[in-house]
Amino acid sequence: MDKREYSPPSPRSTVRRLARRASYDPAVVNAILDEALVASVGFVEREQPFVIPMAFARQDERLILHAATSSRFHRVLASGAPLCVTVTLLDGLVLARSAMHHSVNYRSVVVLGRAEEVTRDDEKLAALARLLEHVLPGRSRASRPPNAIELKATRVFAVPLVAVSVKQRSGGPLDDPEDLALPYWAGVVPLAQRALGPIPDAAHPPVGVEPGGIDGYDRQALGKPWEDVR
Amino acid sequence: MDKREYSPPSPRSTVRRLARRASYDPAVVNAILDEALVASVGFVEREQPFVIPMAFARQDERLILHAATSSRFHRVLASGAPLCVTVTLLDGLVLARSAMHHSVNYRSVVVLGRAEEVTRDDEKLAALARLLEHVLPGRSRASRPPNAIELKATRVFAVPLVAVSVKQRSGGPLDDPEDLALPYWAGVVPLAQRALGPIPDAAHPPVGVEPGGIDGYDRQALGKPWEDVR
Repeated sequence: MDKREYSPPSPRSTVRRLARRASYDPAVVNAILDEALVASVGFVEREQPFVIPMAFARQDERLILHAATSSRFHRVLASGAPLCVTVTLLDGLVLARSAMHHSVNYRSVVVLGRAEEVTRDDEKLAALARLLEHVLPGRSRASRPPNAIELKATRVFAVPLVAVSVKQRSGGPLDDPEDLALPYWAGVVPLAQRALGPIPDAAHPPVGVEPGGIDGYDRQALGKPWEDVR
Repeated sequence: MDKREYSPPSPRSTVRRLARRASYDPAVVNAILDEALVASVGFVEREQPFVIPMAFARQDERLILHAATSSRFHRVLASGAPLCVTVTLLDGLVLARSAMHHSVNYRSVVVLGRAEEVTRDDEKLAALARLLEHVLPGRSRASRPPNAIELKATRVFAVPLVAVSVKQRSGGPLDDPEDLALPYWAGVVPLAQRALGPIPDAAHPPVGVEPGGIDGYDRQALGKPWEDVR
């Protein structure tokens, strides 16, 4: 169980905790953010931390979050309170010969910052469209856009990608030399998120045809720079 | 984009935020905790929330966390500071006819509490074994157990499952009646985490044979009560 949770940089992990956007590698950060479907958003209320899973998307150099005006959460975002937005992708189990060198291959991004509200209707619509495009490219044009009532009932926020750190582990187990001959299997079991066959709305069978991109839906491909995907 | 992030109970989500273990349904909570591989652990340092992905396991009615004495994080756990441990499983994309009714099927557990250190060596060993068993049943007996030096360099903590809430969404899209005839596909794209073929340690080809349970590795089965899995 290699310790990689919250520790200083080491040769076996990549940590970048820097204060300026220019200081991290946007390609690495963006690939992780664009692949992940859910962010864990941390905030503090009366000294108690809370961590809430949320939909999110990257729009250029900021993260988009949204919340209904009927929720409690929109007030947290609107307050400008310090947030931590953490995104984690699991890439594999690392099985070592010794119990303590078991680990997990993963890629994670931690963003510290405060949410800024997006108030202009055209910018809100663009940000909400981005949330859909993040899930399934093309979907914002293959669904009814938000109407005026929905737009009013939804608050949209942006967290700038300024204080960003990346932490990741890849590769095989790193056993102690004296353990290498032990009679235990050691290696990596890769993990991947896969889409199963789509299930049309049973209550109201849809009129439209199944959208493209569902067959072979692959978050990893979505996380790659567009020029690499094609 | 249905709002389910942090809002009061509604007919479409299940929230249990209760102060006593007896008050929630342990079967639901345990199934989610036992299926998930990673927890997002939230804590506060000088009013700034942090959310760190961590390995974890459920041991009876508590969550096990661990940290190296060389890390920064063990001090956070040992301080008895308030924590939030959130576990999220993604079950599917919910594609609706309208942009705003897009959603995600998921199951999540939020545990609020403080970590209590496990100090007795036999209890530490049992908790560390549980962390391995959580990843792959049988693995704690198919690897070298922690030795005295490793045990000393590792601090083990337990967060009691007392203040626990469950939040989940399942089922198809819930479009507004006036949108049902729109020419857009609507339904669910189920998501599942799958293990790909295991990759033996290339640097040091393992002596042991591949462990059972890797072929068809299925977290969802691991999340089910043992009597149901078999």
